[in-house]
Amino acid sequence: MRLAVIGVGLIGGSWAKALREQSQVSEVLGIDRSEEHLDQALALGIIDRVIDYSQLAEADLVFVSIPVDQLVLELPKILDHVGPSTLVIDAGSTKRAICDSVAQHPKRAHFLAAHPIAGTEFSGPKAALADLYQGKLAIVCEIEKTAIDLQERAMKAFSALGMRVRYMGAKEHDVHVAYVSHLSHISAFMLGKTVMEKEKDDRTIFDLAGSGFASTVRLAKSSPEMWAPIFVQNKEPLLETLEAFIEHLTAFKGLIEEEAVEALTEEMKHINSIEKILNPLPLKP
Amino acid sequence: MRLAVIGVGLIGGSWAKALREQSQVSEVLGIDRSEEHLDQALALGIIDRVIDYSQLAEADLVFVSIPVDQLVLELPKILDHVGPSTLVIDAGSTKRAICDSVAQHPKRAHFLAAHPIAGTEFSGPKAALADLYQGKLAIVCEIEKTAIDLQERAMKAFSALGMRVRYMGAKEHDVHVAYVSHLSHISAFMLGKTVMEKEKDDRTIFDLAGSGFASTVRLAKSSPEMWAPIFVQNKEPLLETLEAFIEHLTAFKGLIEEEAVEALTEEMKHINSIEKILNPLPLKP
Repeated sequence: MRLAVIGVGLIGGSWAKALREQSQVSEVLGIDRSEEHLDQALALGIIDRVIDYSQLAEADLVFVSIPVDQLVLELPKILDHVGPSTLVIDAGSTKRAICDSVAQHPKRAHFLAAHPIAGTEFSGPKAALADLYQGKLAIVCEIEKTAIDLQERAMKAFSALGMRVRYMGAKEHDVHVAYVSHLSHISAFMLGKTVMEKEKDDRTIFDLAGSGFASTVRLAKSSPEMWAPIFVQNKEPLLETLEAFIEHLTAFKGLIEEEAVEALTEEMKHINSIEKILNPLPLKP
Repeated sequence: MRLAVIGVGLIGGSWAKALREQSQVSEVLGIDRSEEHLDQALALGIIDRVIDYSQLAEADLVFVSIPVDQLVLELPKILDHVGPSTLVIDAGSTKRAICDSVAQHPKRAHFLAAHPIAGTEFSGPKAALADLYQGKLAIVCEIEKTAIDLQERAMKAFSALGMRVRYMGAKEHDVHVAYVSHLSHISAFMLGKTVMEKEKDDRTIFDLAGSGFASTVRLAKSSPEMWAPIFVQNKEPLLETLEAFIEHLTAFKGLIEEEAVEALTEEMKHINSIEKILNPLPLKP
């Protein structure tokens, strides 16, 4: 299988590395707006050669991992260029706008909308890891709109990467990730901002970071260029999410103001059950 | 040295375990309101025997690790009972109210106010770890109010535990921890609440948690009985902290509403520098 990766950073680079390690690909082609990333990806052996859209028909599988605001613009052009049996998978963190962008495209059946739930706070080809997807979840949206033989090719790739697959509607996906992923990122960024503004002495932050700050703020190292378009594209559910979060913070602040130790304790006890959610009994795959 | 631990949970239990492992103690005495914790601590070999306040004069070092609302009530009584050369160290996460509670005590010089920046999201004697304090920071407040020979005994203990020591005023300490520690805990709890309320299907939270949620919400597993009194006791700086956090969230929400991709990107780029703060060049100890 010949793989083309559009956007050879952490996500695309890891995808290529992993499929190569699993002997799933004979050749990896690369496209990126950054010459530097292309050079790095070539030097690291992540891609074998650089191509442009006009050569996309050579690929059996095109993996598109670029910021979501570019995805909605590029995806229709990418589909314009694919061959009669090419499968295109995206890795965008939003799904509704992306699915909408190709809903009427004559080659819609060549596309499978995916969101691999994997990543680190680092970016670029040098951050790519062959085991990034191992044991992780791939959310697949609007599966019924992808041609059946191409669905099978996608499942073979997910399985080679060691990924579990879960199906969702695109709109449903966007609401879930607003709550479980995007809110965490915004909270980490704003926490970082609040602390940095107050603590002008970096050494104090570092010394006290062991007290919980380091883990809650880890995501504030994430790529702004990747996340700003995600937040805007997922605006609708995200605003609702943020409103609920701000409301809860305000109410909790009120309880502290009233010195309501018992109410604060009860409130936190209830939330403690999050432990059971994050460490559930394992399900069969 | 004979050590007495009041509150034989994660913090006190780890303190005893570590000093025993470093051959610093000949015997460990235990006091706790929970019979169950005392039994566990005896069974685990963390303490050698159970005593009450009337026997505290037997101890060379008394380590007090109980919730901060109990600390302000118990600390004066503990000092009432100590012997002529007993040192008392507390481990409270706040320092001003605790220092105030014994400011006028005739045995004030027996007390050293400390906050070891160490812990896990677990609690109880079973959670105690011999290496919990290794490489961690001990913040010491109002050091000048502790007798010089007892200061030396405390430094010897911190050093045996592998801890660095940093000195601060009690009020200054409380402001720093409000920002760098307490806010992180409240943010994690409220994040957990927001997600749990929306996502009635636990499986969805678990599946998507890899996307950042798990690390930002880890602290929401913390002990409510320990944290509620801390939040109330540190009310003043904490309310200011929460106000700033809520303001930043509201402003960020506004930028998303306006679809201001560039402003969002700039804002996050600035916060990205938190990476340098959390991974600074090492200082000489």
